[in-house]
Amino acid sequence: MKLLRLLKSGLALARERGVSVVLEPQIATSVPEITPFGLRARQCSSPRLNLVLPSINPEHYFGGADTAVKLYRALLDRFPRSRIVLLDSHPRSEALARFPDHVAVDSDEESDAPRQIVGFSNRYGRTLPAGAADRWMATAWWTAFAAQSATAWQQSLGETPRPVLYFIQDFEPGFYPWSSQSAVASSTYRADFDFGVFNTGLLRDYFAGQGITYARQVVIEPTLNASLRPVEQAGEQRERVILVYARPSVPRNALPLICEGLRAWGWSDARCKHWDVLGIGELDRDLDLGPFVLRGLGKLSLADYRSRLQRSAIGLSLMLSPHPSYPPLEMAAFGMSTISNAFANKDLACWFDNVVSLRSASPAAIADALRGEVDRWEFAQMAQRWRIPGDHAFLGDDRSFDAAVTQIKGWAAQHW
Amino acid sequence: MKLLRLLKSGLALARERGVSVVLEPQIATSVPEITPFGLRARQCSSPRLNLVLPSINPEHYFGGADTAVKLYRALLDRFPRSRIVLLDSHPRSEALARFPDHVAVDSDEESDAPRQIVGFSNRYGRTLPAGAADRWMATAWWTAFAAQSATAWQQSLGETPRPVLYFIQDFEPGFYPWSSQSAVASSTYRADFDFGVFNTGLLRDYFAGQGITYARQVVIEPTLNASLRPVEQAGEQRERVILVYARPSVPRNALPLICEGLRAWGWSDARCKHWDVLGIGELDRDLDLGPFVLRGLGKLSLADYRSRLQRSAIGLSLMLSPHPSYPPLEMAAFGMSTISNAFANKDLACWFDNVVSLRSASPAAIADALRGEVDRWEFAQMAQRWRIPGDHAFLGDDRSFDAAVTQIKGWAAQHW
Repeated sequence: MKLLRLLKSGLALARERGVSVVLEPQIATSVPEITPFGLRARQCSSPRLNLVLPSINPEHYFGGADTAVKLYRALLDRFPRSRIVLLDSHPRSEALARFPDHVAVDSDEESDAPRQIVGFSNRYGRTLPAGAADRWMATAWWTAFAAQSATAWQQSLGETPRPVLYFIQDFEPGFYPWSSQSAVASSTYRADFDFGVFNTGLLRDYFAGQGITYARQVVIEPTLNASLRPVEQAGEQRERVILVYARPSVPRNALPLICEGLRAWGWSDARCKHWDVLGIGELDRDLDLGPFVLRGLGKLSLADYRSRLQRSAIGLSLMLSPHPSYPPLEMAAFGMSTISNAFANKDLACWFDNVVSLRSASPAAIADALRGEVDRWEFAQMAQRWRIPGDHAFLGDDRSFDAAVTQIKGWAAQHW
Repeated sequence: MKLLRLLKSGLALARERGVSVVLEPQIATSVPEITPFGLRARQCSSPRLNLVLPSINPEHYFGGADTAVKLYRALLDRFPRSRIVLLDSHPRSEALARFPDHVAVDSDEESDAPRQIVGFSNRYGRTLPAGAADRWMATAWWTAFAAQSATAWQQSLGETPRPVLYFIQDFEPGFYPWSSQSAVASSTYRADFDFGVFNTGLLRDYFAGQGITYARQVVIEPTLNASLRPVEQAGEQRERVILVYARPSVPRNALPLICEGLRAWGWSDARCKHWDVLGIGELDRDLDLGPFVLRGLGKLSLADYRSRLQRSAIGLSLMLSPHPSYPPLEMAAFGMSTISNAFANKDLACWFDNVVSLRSASPAAIADALRGEVDRWEFAQMAQRWRIPGDHAFLGDDRSFDAAVTQIKGWAAQHW
């Protein structure tokens, strides 16, 4: 007790004298994602397209960044000069190798290379050269924040402010508790001013439901990855397999809730012993769920994934977002019974007959849906139940993307 | 390298044999808030009211729990028997002292005490006695989940399922990123079945905007704490003080964003040297913001708080939620220029003329609002600018609460 009192008075003394006391938890006084995006003026003539991205390194380069780069490349014929600016991670050589037509440039350099990649993660106190001719394209909310601050800086130099091309791939305030981050993310949705390119109409409609309607916008709809084609069944019978999309690192894929649902099903349905429950996505180990084990298969190759989609009876994939996400669409397209969740205006059961779309995603609701689909397959003695929906838009080609690019170019010619 | 390879193969071996490997990060397979709420059957005759709460210990006993207890107490005259069940923290003696008419009972006991408090945080493998006559009232989402599972258990014993009285004080899925927790929290909103008591009409309207409209519901509106009355000015002049509601532990009060806004204002407005920026709420130390220091005053007594509200010119209080929260209402009621944020359908500028309600809560928007209000006060040489809005509903008495209680009792007589 004496020691504790001594320690306490020592701490009080240290605090009085302004000594930082290590035992006190840090209080955050900044939003780290919005570290200033400093620019320095440099004259230039022809328009330059800037794509601001978090990272192109392999560990961060998933669907979102890839689609943004695809869109950027589709616009390059209008822009003799362009630049990819990376805010979060400096690009490594294996990432740069994917961009053989671009050269890595340091932000301190004054380079005339027509296609540049600039790592700008270590930007405190540093600047990037820019001028009146720079146009800005962004995707994650903090890249949009940087791009918007760049246009504000251009305006402060007397230029007409230009809209940002904002490639919106999810409602990102939903990635945080209501907080500083969610507030600043929301503040980047300048629907009266910027040009919104939405990844899916569902997402665009969700924004409208939240009172955010972009005056100028375009929608891109998802289509099945070419490597998964052709879509066909493997045979007349399916395997007693529940394929689970298991990504422990992504909260909106809700792995803990999936496990609660699987456990509730297993404890109430002795048939779980005869079914294999397989985790795909990024689960690389087995999870003991009591009555059975969820076996982690890790990230499958596209060929192995396609084979599983062809042979498995039931899929379970949650996405707590208005964004549909690919796995449930892929499962459904291949004729699996697919259990997913509804979310606000999203209801994939309207897209595919073989989707069970849970309005209330509780463990009990997941267990009920699993029991129902197992009933269905067992009753049919595992004979194929669903037709492959051949004429579905998701199974179509890149027309939606190409049409969006044409619209974006039309907009750019007028407003950029 | 050899050592690393050896270690890796050892780990792989251990994993094969099912040995838990400490070096791998844990993967969550459950939602800890919904640890089963086990019940055991016990006959009883007269109806019993159960209030399920997270905790009544002082460190958790803020406005929300207190209002729920007030509502519970208002209903007791209908219920000769009642029980407060605590899910998260075992009640300590200083908490029990606030309930002299209740006795602490262990969940394993079969007690006939008419007023009980039962700690049920350590409930794994344990049960609570319950029967057909138990009625359930809940507030935080996981207390509602427990109450709903209790009514499902009653139904499994052949009883008619009864609605839960759900005292909804915020849209709690917003307290999490989109995730397992937000999904299960959402699943507790059974708008067709339960009775919703909403803390504020704003919140009720937000739920409606999200597609959740309770068929049977009541609204309680906030009113000024009696200890802060009477509302009056301290004099003709106000002090050059910006009063900041600073709660580092509550993400939706957005302290990091507030600091970003204050810093942006300070760097662009030399007058910051002549103003005191004071943090109230729970900030108990000073924060260096560059051009000035945010001085932490800690939690003020109600008398000191009232005095600050009377004398300070400007208030800054954010709440990223449709719930209005008390501080900006209190600041506005006392005639301060009050800077807060709009949120979905919430716009406190409709309630008070002296609220600046930011539609976009970016650092730049906060800085602009501060500059504007400092202009206003400096121009008036700190002479009182706003009239105390004497006839405002927020300054009224407990009529809204009493009216709600009458409605709830009417509902209970019919449906409970």
